[in-house]
Amino acid sequence: MNSTALPLVVLSEHFAKLPGIGMKTAQRLAYHVMSMSDEEARSFADAIINAHSTVKECSVCCNLTEDDICPVCSDDRRDREIICVVETPRDIAAIERVNEYKGLYHVLHGLISPMNGVGPDMLRIKQLIARVSSGEVKEVIMATDSTVEGEATAMYVSKLLKPFDVSVTRLASGLPNGASLEFADEVTLYKALENRSEI
Amino acid sequence: MNSTALPLVVLSEHFAKLPGIGMKTAQRLAYHVMSMSDEEARSFADAIINAHSTVKECSVCCNLTEDDICPVCSDDRRDREIICVVETPRDIAAIERVNEYKGLYHVLHGLISPMNGVGPDMLRIKQLIARVSSGEVKEVIMATDSTVEGEATAMYVSKLLKPFDVSVTRLASGLPNGASLEFADEVTLYKALENRSEI
Repeated sequence: MNSTALPLVVLSEHFAKLPGIGMKTAQRLAYHVMSMSDEEARSFADAIINAHSTVKECSVCCNLTEDDICPVCSDDRRDREIICVVETPRDIAAIERVNEYKGLYHVLHGLISPMNGVGPDMLRIKQLIARVSSGEVKEVIMATDSTVEGEATAMYVSKLLKPFDVSVTRLASGLPNGASLEFADEVTLYKALENRSEI
Repeated sequence: MNSTALPLVVLSEHFAKLPGIGMKTAQRLAYHVMSMSDEEARSFADAIINAHSTVKECSVCCNLTEDDICPVCSDDRRDREIICVVETPRDIAAIERVNEYKGLYHVLHGLISPMNGVGPDMLRIKQLIARVSSGEVKEVIMATDSTVEGEATAMYVSKLLKPFDVSVTRLASGLPNGASLEFADEVTLYKALENRSEI
């Protein structure tokens, strides 16, 4: 006999489809929804529908936005000669928090990963090439993750950008702030040594 | 400048209110909703509304159910002389998986926890007393967690049940199956020693 009510099972299955949420956690979340007020549950459901239906990709940089062109792209004070290429919109939020970068962005919405069946055609690379070929851009910063997929994607895109009169750069590799040498992995240490700078 | 679209921020905040979900994870979940199909997002939202509006407490045992009386309480084959008292409906699912217990349940919907502001009045203790006072019940098994709150709640309820002609029992304490002595904590070992049985 199944002692769990069917709508709860259905809701658990929806939660379990989210990344990083297993079946046990999903059940816990579903039971939590039961303890919400009517208003809370309604506004949670509305938030899903609302975000999903009103948020779309910026027609310039592919960042997620409510408008046709996102606030960064439509901001006149941003430097239009630099484009920082990132994997996800969350990466933009991370870089914006540093409050240092004043150029534009381009969101690839993924990294090339043959293991996961993600090829270059599934990313927003064409849109990036189109932006660069317009001629205004002087530098493209490849700010993808420092992982195998991130490096491979950076290499791939930089090769495609070779024909254009644009400098392609990559975020620096090395020890993260506060790191102790003892616990640094070999690749990080190798890169930190290789890219050492004069004091 | 905030580079994140407002509906995404709102959705992230809803996810972050769920237990065990921090702000970073909540953002990841919100972005995942963006990658769903229209139909998936709609059915996720519907599942929340549907579960919240159709699932309610069983009028007998307070388990969550779609019906007025849950499948366990309305099953004639269950032994009506035993009530197993648990904290949450998920605990019922756990005990049912053992496929050994054939009595009824009672869900307290929480444990007494002064630290978290949960007093006895906020639990379904009154309903349990009412069931026991009807006279049909011969045994009440206190199957709350083996934690400070679980033990305290079991003690509190068992005192309230003293005036009735009913035996109140507690789940056995000891080493879990497959445990190695070396890693057992002191309290578990103490209880395992104290409750040792003849071979």
